[in-house]
Amino acid sequence: MAEAHSLELLVQALRKLPGVGVKSAQRMAFHLLQHDRQGALQLATALQHACKHVGHCLLCHTFTEEEICPTCRDPRRDRSLLCVLENPADQAALERTGAYKGLYFVLMGKLSPLDGVGPKEIGMHKLLERVDTLVDGVREVREVILATNFTAEGETTSHVISQALKARGVQVTRLARGVPVGSELEYVDLGTIAHALVDRR
Amino acid sequence: MAEAHSLELLVQALRKLPGVGVKSAQRMAFHLLQHDRQGALQLATALQHACKHVGHCLLCHTFTEEEICPTCRDPRRDRSLLCVLENPADQAALERTGAYKGLYFVLMGKLSPLDGVGPKEIGMHKLLERVDTLVDGVREVREVILATNFTAEGETTSHVISQALKARGVQVTRLARGVPVGSELEYVDLGTIAHALVDRR
Repeated sequence: MAEAHSLELLVQALRKLPGVGVKSAQRMAFHLLQHDRQGALQLATALQHACKHVGHCLLCHTFTEEEICPTCRDPRRDRSLLCVLENPADQAALERTGAYKGLYFVLMGKLSPLDGVGPKEIGMHKLLERVDTLVDGVREVREVILATNFTAEGETTSHVISQALKARGVQVTRLARGVPVGSELEYVDLGTIAHALVDRR
Repeated sequence: MAEAHSLELLVQALRKLPGVGVKSAQRMAFHLLQHDRQGALQLATALQHACKHVGHCLLCHTFTEEEICPTCRDPRRDRSLLCVLENPADQAALERTGAYKGLYFVLMGKLSPLDGVGPKEIGMHKLLERVDTLVDGVREVREVILATNFTAEGETTSHVISQALKARGVQVTRLARGVPVGSELEYVDLGTIAHALVDRR
């Protein structure tokens, strides 16, 4: 298909999207060219604009277009609480609950030595620096809430961070594990029930 | 999220891709911004380039960057055979078999009255014009092979085209329905077996 060069390049470029294989990429390319060229051009502009303007917040590491993200700048947030998460999507989920009024630190990943992601890649040193920041001679952050995902890698990440923070004498907590709201015990997996039993209150 | 404006716009733009919902779009945006900004910019360029350069072949309607696509220009192809398909992906599949040496007509869709896709939208008049083209006083196209998909809409499309062509006295055939190569009868659906029985040879 040397002839359909632009089309071929478009299909290849669409495959860079996570979860998109050859067939999906072809379907996307055909759909855009046949039914939504305007959408395709909008997508192109949005990609260029985002790549140019979106950076990381100097404090919490999340995506933002400014030096410091609006959440970190917000004077109404409780600066003594710091919630550590894997990515901005998790942060958005926590924000939607409306139950958290502290600040965040977004790792932008999780420890995964096999993929070459170590403590440096998830910004461990920045997190420790942040926790060690003194205001009027005392630590501003009093409690770090670990909210990495409850997967093997998320748990490992949480464990490693927790060890480093405890060595510094910082209070570290982890999101509660337990039975999801609205679920019936009969259908909840055994590991979750066992954890809920141990962590009963 | 008025603050993360470019990011929000990117997520919205990614949702224009078929089969991509909010969650997938977010995941794609985060992935591109975090791990593959070069890929994102390549995708932007590929989209713009394809929108600018890819058009439709004047003869067969498929995507091409030229007036007439290379397949239609190829002097080695049998011009008396015309295969009618729904889209370029189907055409690519048929080409990969290496079993067809005639020309194509790509409908770029299928009849779907509820979605406002009628005979005009699938280029019915162009197909009839094409079939009626005379070379030295006789029809160049001797046989039209209907290769629309074997779905309800594909079958309807095939039926409508077939009626119009038969009224003009053109030979019309349809891809054979039957048991897929490599499959065991036990696991083939009953409709397929029934068709294979009726169409036995």
